[in-house]
Amino acid sequence: MLNQNQQHTLTRWHEFVVNRNEQILPEILADEMQFFSPFVYKPKNKAAAMTILQTVTNVFEDFRYTRKMFGASCATLEFAANVGAISLQGVDIIEFDEAGKIIEFKVMIRPANGLQALGAAMNERLTAQGVTV
Amino acid sequence: MLNQNQQHTLTRWHEFVVNRNEQILPEILADEMQFFSPFVYKPKNKAAAMTILQTVTNVFEDFRYTRKMFGASCATLEFAANVGAISLQGVDIIEFDEAGKIIEFKVMIRPANGLQALGAAMNERLTAQGVTV
Repeated sequence: MLNQNQQHTLTRWHEFVVNRNEQILPEILADEMQFFSPFVYKPKNKAAAMTILQTVTNVFEDFRYTRKMFGASCATLEFAANVGAISLQGVDIIEFDEAGKIIEFKVMIRPANGLQALGAAMNERLTAQGVTV
Repeated sequence: MLNQNQQHTLTRWHEFVVNRNEQILPEILADEMQFFSPFVYKPKNKAAAMTILQTVTNVFEDFRYTRKMFGASCATLEFAANVGAISLQGVDIIEFDEAGKIIEFKVMIRPANGLQALGAAMNERLTAQGVTV
């Protein structure tokens, strides 16, 4: 149910996840996009989102997408990953604009100890960059 | 992308959410279904799932579904709700068998203080029934 531009962005997102090519995120995220982290209610801007998304690819171990679901201009990508000894599952809920850019990116994580382990590992790496999750 | 049986079950699920009719859950949940709570990794069985789902309808205030996405035999229903003064968002990820019964029901919640408020409110009500989330 995604248009061609949106499908192209989703392909580029998967390329980012696999290759960790930092050139991809600025291209596929809309400048006014909002990033909803699993930790705090208030959304973050594109600059913070890029830092967080680049960092999390180094924190997750054995990351794999497990299911995908589509709506009108949006997709849910369910994943599984480990953080140290803790196994967790999560969703990336991605909303696209008509041109195919990502205008909203929302992450949720389960279970509670996975959320906690991820937050600790992320903040350890992000503090030096002046960003929090 | 759901078949007719699966769509019927989804309609019945929405009826349960609106009417809180306890007769609906035993009918739409497969006997061998697994319920993945947002709090603990290990899945729960149908009996625990029914208790948890019936209880959460009384804990969430101003509950509303906000987006829906579909995959092969599965659906993501995104929602927003309040628990006391705390606003939260979540997803119900529902997997159906061919006959339309729910074989897997997974819940994720954001942000962290919403997850915590929900857990506290749920356990307060569930302790007397011998169930934990």
